[in-house]
Amino acid sequence: MVDSALIEEALERRKARRESFAGVSYVRLTDSLQGWPRGSVVLEDGTVVPGYPSIGRVLNLEQGLAQHFQAPFHAEEKVDGFNVRIVRHAGSHWAFSRGGFVCPFTTDRVPDLIDTSVFDAEPDLVLCGEVAGPGNPYLEGHPPEIQEDVVLQVFDLMRFGAADFLPVEGRRALLERHALPAVPWHGRFDVSQAADLRALVADLDRRGVEGLVLKEEGERRKRAKYVTPASVVQDLTAMGDALLDLPPEYFTNRLLRLVLILEESPELDRPELRRELGAALIDPLLDAAREHRTTHKVAHSFCSRFRSKENAERFVEHLRRIPQSEIHSTVRSLEQGEDGYWELRFDRVFPRISGLLGNFLSGGQVYD
Amino acid sequence: MVDSALIEEALERRKARRESFAGVSYVRLTDSLQGWPRGSVVLEDGTVVPGYPSIGRVLNLEQGLAQHFQAPFHAEEKVDGFNVRIVRHAGSHWAFSRGGFVCPFTTDRVPDLIDTSVFDAEPDLVLCGEVAGPGNPYLEGHPPEIQEDVVLQVFDLMRFGAADFLPVEGRRALLERHALPAVPWHGRFDVSQAADLRALVADLDRRGVEGLVLKEEGERRKRAKYVTPASVVQDLTAMGDALLDLPPEYFTNRLLRLVLILEESPELDRPELRRELGAALIDPLLDAAREHRTTHKVAHSFCSRFRSKENAERFVEHLRRIPQSEIHSTVRSLEQGEDGYWELRFDRVFPRISGLLGNFLSGGQVYD
Repeated sequence: MVDSALIEEALERRKARRESFAGVSYVRLTDSLQGWPRGSVVLEDGTVVPGYPSIGRVLNLEQGLAQHFQAPFHAEEKVDGFNVRIVRHAGSHWAFSRGGFVCPFTTDRVPDLIDTSVFDAEPDLVLCGEVAGPGNPYLEGHPPEIQEDVVLQVFDLMRFGAADFLPVEGRRALLERHALPAVPWHGRFDVSQAADLRALVADLDRRGVEGLVLKEEGERRKRAKYVTPASVVQDLTAMGDALLDLPPEYFTNRLLRLVLILEESPELDRPELRRELGAALIDPLLDAAREHRTTHKVAHSFCSRFRSKENAERFVEHLRRIPQSEIHSTVRSLEQGEDGYWELRFDRVFPRISGLLGNFLSGGQVYD
Repeated sequence: MVDSALIEEALERRKARRESFAGVSYVRLTDSLQGWPRGSVVLEDGTVVPGYPSIGRVLNLEQGLAQHFQAPFHAEEKVDGFNVRIVRHAGSHWAFSRGGFVCPFTTDRVPDLIDTSVFDAEPDLVLCGEVAGPGNPYLEGHPPEIQEDVVLQVFDLMRFGAADFLPVEGRRALLERHALPAVPWHGRFDVSQAADLRALVADLDRRGVEGLVLKEEGERRKRAKYVTPASVVQDLTAMGDALLDLPPEYFTNRLLRLVLILEESPELDRPELRRELGAALIDPLLDAAREHRTTHKVAHSFCSRFRSKENAERFVEHLRRIPQSEIHSTVRSLEQGEDGYWELRFDRVFPRISGLLGNFLSGGQVYD
């Protein structure tokens, strides 16, 4: 519970915004407020769904462990999807995005993603997990082993009104007890075991896994994330054709990551890696330029499944509200399949690269 | 000649700046002014050295020719160096940079670069050329066939007080008459000959040449430049270790160039190109990260030769004045060689990548 006067003040100072979904209103924090991180949600009755704090990235495991960890820690798989918090509130299930919006897609699919009976036993639980798979409506990439639709993998548990995570051991036991899907757990390590972790990362890299999140035991609950070279190549491949619609740091930051990982772990370097990196930066954009001659645009196509038509329509509204430079979405179709699910097909259009390719392919000059 | 009242007004409005070199003062335009492009220089007696206007880049030859050219044009080699304008004034020779500064390096080396007797016959001539080679104090790359020191290759002639180029044929005749070094000339084409030009580009690409500048005959004097895939890989290799000290568009613009060139000319695509691109983006930075462990910085080393010690010292001053984000230069040594030349050794230090590598190699976390 937070004081309603505090919320009113935050709304006035533009540190919070009032939102609504399916007739239910809530407030999301657009800035941190009195210990609640950005993305925290205040429900109608004053209940707080704590925001999910960001996790710092290290680019050197050995030094990173030495600098940040003081106790043993757990290594969990970092999954390539989007972060949600799922709760039960007023008899319904809600999934909140990182920014504190209700995600109409995940909210719609909650019954497919988890056995919601967990909330009978634990009504104040906040399930923090990653939604991943080719049916993901936000992201281009997905873990290679998820072949269709989406799955949820839980990586943290919180409780209403407490900006803190359950300890890893307790969380794992609770998830197992309720048969809830969890991110793969890769073991418990201490700071002297950087070499073991690097061997684990090499294995994950071969399997195309995104990386690891390390979570310290005890009161400090320090965390760090670390990615694989494969994830860099995947990210660049996924967005190579949107070269000028993302912040250019999307590309330069990932190159820096890749190089620092290789600096520490030469065993992750492979003869094919340079060719793969070059291909990631050439081929998606080259394909896009060729297609542009007929389509006159660069776009990514999505197909996501919904249980209810209403939620699919709410999702379309939601997409319009997400500010991501000038990237916009256009709906192609919304049709009910034989299995009763509504399939929403839409394109995400990249206006800047679309326009520039059109200009250059028709002979335009640039003074750069 | 320009009106001195106009210059005074431009100085007041910050469209021009007063500079001096070796006790001689001059004014350089920091903005275009009454038909004079930015970088034009007004000498003490009111003589104007016209600025060198920028040349638009095309990324599709066939369409670019159709869109921009109306008459036959000459194809000249684009040389990987820096642009200077050399004049004789008050009995001395001066070389101006693109921005209108006296370049102390080129000014010092004029007698090595050209036979200055051309100015006896043509006192109002402005020689526009590229200074290129491994002794270049500004740039990392250089044409592969220039093995040591620097050379000048002239690509245009202007005259004092006229913001216009001599026609290509007249320029070539004049340069030949005075035995002045010229950029390689690759022929005269018309807009129907895009395929011939592409074949020429393929040949230049194999030789590692930067590209072509196309110059239309007649009154319009329309121009366009076009580069090779090899030049993109060279540029990225040269600056890959300064990843975060250059505008990120340095990298993204070049990737776009490369892809559009390949889209039009699949014959320029080679099995090795992706590996080379990946290597350009990994290896210089990887080497820099490894060296950083002992040097604690990322820097490029330069060694440039001067005829006079005074000019070398003026050059060091000049480097301090060139604004290029926070990149700065530190002098290692200035020593006279057996041939009488002064060798200036200095480093260009990249502070941003230096600091970030230090932070990450020691285990620092980033919230990105």
